[in-house]
Amino acid sequence: MSTLETTHSIAVNGERLWQSLMDLARIGATPKGGNARLALTALDGQGRDLVVGWMKDAGLEIHVDQVGNIFGRRAGSNNDLPPVMTGSHIDTQPTGGKFDGCYGVMAGLEVMRTLQERGIQTEAPLELIIWTNEEGSRFLPVMMGSGVFTGRFTLQEALQARDTEGLCVADELKAIGYAGSEPVGERPVGAYFEAHIEQGPVLEAEDKIIGAVTGSLGVRWYEATVTGMEMHAGPTPMPVRKDALLAAAELVQSVVRIARDNPPQGRGTVGVLNVYPASRNVVPGRVDFTVDLRHIDPATLEAMDQRMRSEFAEVAQRHGVQVQLEQVQYNAPTPFEPALIDMVRQSAARRGLSMMDITTGAGHDAVHMAMVHPTAMIFVPCKDGVSHNEIEDAQPAHLEAGCNVLLDAMLARAVVAG
Amino acid sequence: MSTLETTHSIAVNGERLWQSLMDLARIGATPKGGNARLALTALDGQGRDLVVGWMKDAGLEIHVDQVGNIFGRRAGSNNDLPPVMTGSHIDTQPTGGKFDGCYGVMAGLEVMRTLQERGIQTEAPLELIIWTNEEGSRFLPVMMGSGVFTGRFTLQEALQARDTEGLCVADELKAIGYAGSEPVGERPVGAYFEAHIEQGPVLEAEDKIIGAVTGSLGVRWYEATVTGMEMHAGPTPMPVRKDALLAAAELVQSVVRIARDNPPQGRGTVGVLNVYPASRNVVPGRVDFTVDLRHIDPATLEAMDQRMRSEFAEVAQRHGVQVQLEQVQYNAPTPFEPALIDMVRQSAARRGLSMMDITTGAGHDAVHMAMVHPTAMIFVPCKDGVSHNEIEDAQPAHLEAGCNVLLDAMLARAVVAG
Repeated sequence: MSTLETTHSIAVNGERLWQSLMDLARIGATPKGGNARLALTALDGQGRDLVVGWMKDAGLEIHVDQVGNIFGRRAGSNNDLPPVMTGSHIDTQPTGGKFDGCYGVMAGLEVMRTLQERGIQTEAPLELIIWTNEEGSRFLPVMMGSGVFTGRFTLQEALQARDTEGLCVADELKAIGYAGSEPVGERPVGAYFEAHIEQGPVLEAEDKIIGAVTGSLGVRWYEATVTGMEMHAGPTPMPVRKDALLAAAELVQSVVRIARDNPPQGRGTVGVLNVYPASRNVVPGRVDFTVDLRHIDPATLEAMDQRMRSEFAEVAQRHGVQVQLEQVQYNAPTPFEPALIDMVRQSAARRGLSMMDITTGAGHDAVHMAMVHPTAMIFVPCKDGVSHNEIEDAQPAHLEAGCNVLLDAMLARAVVAG
Repeated sequence: MSTLETTHSIAVNGERLWQSLMDLARIGATPKGGNARLALTALDGQGRDLVVGWMKDAGLEIHVDQVGNIFGRRAGSNNDLPPVMTGSHIDTQPTGGKFDGCYGVMAGLEVMRTLQERGIQTEAPLELIIWTNEEGSRFLPVMMGSGVFTGRFTLQEALQARDTEGLCVADELKAIGYAGSEPVGERPVGAYFEAHIEQGPVLEAEDKIIGAVTGSLGVRWYEATVTGMEMHAGPTPMPVRKDALLAAAELVQSVVRIARDNPPQGRGTVGVLNVYPASRNVVPGRVDFTVDLRHIDPATLEAMDQRMRSEFAEVAQRHGVQVQLEQVQYNAPTPFEPALIDMVRQSAARRGLSMMDITTGAGHDAVHMAMVHPTAMIFVPCKDGVSHNEIEDAQPAHLEAGCNVLLDAMLARAVVAG
C-alpha cells in the first residue's frame, strides 16, 4: 500500500483553515475587506506573533534566520533526512487581499495541526516557513527572504534595503523582534511545496479546483524610449510630423501580437507608458514605456525577443523616429520538479478533484526555491482571477481542497513512519 | 497711382528691427539663447518699460487699459477714422524664444519708426498694441488681453486669475505699473494686422518667405477615458485580457488617420496619455488621454468628430472595453478678412517676395480680433518650425521682409494722406 493510499483517507479541517485565515486578516484589515500588512511593520510583527503562537501550539520548534525568515520544524523519525518544507508569506500589498501568501502559510499550518491531531509521524522532518518580504511593496528586492535563502541576493543587500522613509530592513527586523541569529540558507531542503491562490483567471475559466504548477514563466523586462520630434499640434501638418506616441502605439500592438502568436504561455504587456512633454496641443516628442515578455520555453522567449527587436526597428524606420530598447531584467523560465508535480497530480486524482497543469506567471518564493531545490506549487482558483486587491476572494471549499493536496504531497514525499 | 505703388518703394530698417529684438531679448535671457519673461512678472514690466520708451520715441501716444493692454497711437490726418492697428505680445513661455510675439510688436514699432523718419502721414490713425498675457504660462486663460478686448472673457475673470503662488492679475498689473484706467475694448478698430513667426514648418518646407494667413483652424479638444480590466501581466493569458492601453493604441491611430484623411488642413493629436496603475507587470486597467482635432472648415471638422466617435465605439466593442469621450473646448474656425489678406498678398507680390496662402493652427491675439474686427496676419518662416523653445530662430532677412509687408498693408489700409 503506497503512502498516498494510506493518507488520502485523512483530511484537513477546512473550517479551521478558513477561521485562521480570517483571524490573521484582522491584523491590518482594510475597509474594503482586504489587508494592509506591509513587510516588517508593527502589523507584520503582530501577524508573525499570532502565527508563531499557532505554530508552537501545533508542536513546531521555531527558528528565525538573520533575514527574519521563520522556520517551524516538526521532527521526523529520521532527522538526518532533509526536511520536506512548505510555506509562503504573510506580508501584503498596501491594498492587498486576505489570501495571497497567507493561504500558503495557513495551509501549511493546517497540515501540521492535522498531523498533530492524528498523531502521524513522518520519516523526514517537516518544516513550515514564513518568508520575509515577498511582496516588495515596502522594501526591494521582492521575494527577499527566499532570495537570500537561495543565494540570489546577499544578506547585506537585504538588510541594507531602505523604505521610502529611509528605514532599513536590519533595523525594522530588530524593531519587531525577528532579527534571528541563524545563518541564512544553511538549512537542508528535501523538498519545497507552496500552496497559493492562482492570481489569474485560468482555473476559474476552466472550472478546475487544483492547478498542478509545472513551472514559472521566464520573464524579460525591458525599457523602451521612442524619440520623435516635439511640435505644435496646430501649425504642424500631418505629413511632416514625427509623432513619438503614434509610433509607440504600434510598438504596444507589436508586443501584444508577439505574445498572442505564442499561445497559450506567451505574455506581452506594456504596463507603464509616459508621454513627453504631455501637453494637449503638442505632438509628443518622446515616449518611454516598459515591456514585459514571458514564456515557459527559453527558446520561444528568445524568439519573441528577436521578433520584437525586428518589429521595433521596422516601426522606427517607417515613422522616422528612434527607438531604444534595453533589457533590464531576465528571469529564466524555472521548471518545477517532475516527481513533486506528480505527487500533486496524483493526490488531486485520488481525491476526485478536478485538476489541470498550469504555469505560474507571477513570482513566488517557490520560484526562488525551484532554482536550487526540488519544488512544486499547488494553485487553487481565486474569484475573477483578481489578486493584489482588497476584493481578492477564494472559496473555502477550494482552499480546503488545495490544503488536502498539500497534506498528501508532503506525506508522500516525507513518507509516513512506522 | 495706388497707395501700394507709392509706398512699396519705401522700406523698413531691417538692422534696427533685429537690434530691437535682440535688445528686448536681453531682459529675461536664458542660458540657451531663449527668453523667460512671463506675463506680469518684474521682467515683463522691464520689457514693457523698454518698449514703451521706444514707442514714445517713435512719437506714439501711450494708452493703457484696465487689463494692461498697451496702445501706442500715431494720429492720422482724419482722426474720426478708426485706427489701423498692429501688435502682438512680449510675454514668453518659461523656456520661450526671442521671436514669438516679440516679432509682431517690434515689426509694428519698426513700421512706426520708419513712418516717423520719412515724415509720412496716414489718413486713418495707426496704433501699435502690446497685448497682456498671450502665452497663458502663468495666468489662464491664454490670449487674455485680446480676449477681454474682444469680449471673449470678462475683465473680472482676467483680473481675478491667479498663478500657482496665488498671486492675481489685478495685483501683479499694479505691481509692474500697468494697471491702466481705460475701459477695455472700447477703442474703435479699423483693421488689425499681426506679423508673427509661423511656429510651424510649412513656409520653410515650401521655401516661401511670406505666408498670407487666410484664417485660423477650428479646434475641438476632448478628454477620453478607456476602462478595461487591471490584471497581472504574468498569470493572465492574452485572450482573457481587457488591456486599456492596447485599445488606446488603436484610438491614437484613429485620431491621426482621421486627420491625415482630411489634408492639408486636418490635424489630429493625442498629446497627453496617462496609464493606470502604471506598473510594469500589471495590464493597464485604465488609460486617459486628450484629443486635439483641427480643420479650417467647420463642416469637415464636424465630420471628423463624427467619424472619431464612430471609430472609438467600434474599437471599444471589439476590445471589450469602455470608451468615454467628452468635448471640453470648441473654437470655431476663424476666417480672416479677404480685403486685408489681399493687401498682404499684393505687397509680397510687388516686393518680389515668395509667398503662399497659409492657415494658422496656433492661437494668436489676431484670432480673437478676427472674431469681431477685420483682421489679417503675416507669417515669416522660423527655423525647423520650432517655437515655444529657447532655440527658436528666424532669419533677419525674413523678419525684415515680413515687416515691409506689414508696412505696405497698414499704409494700404490707412491710406497715405496728402
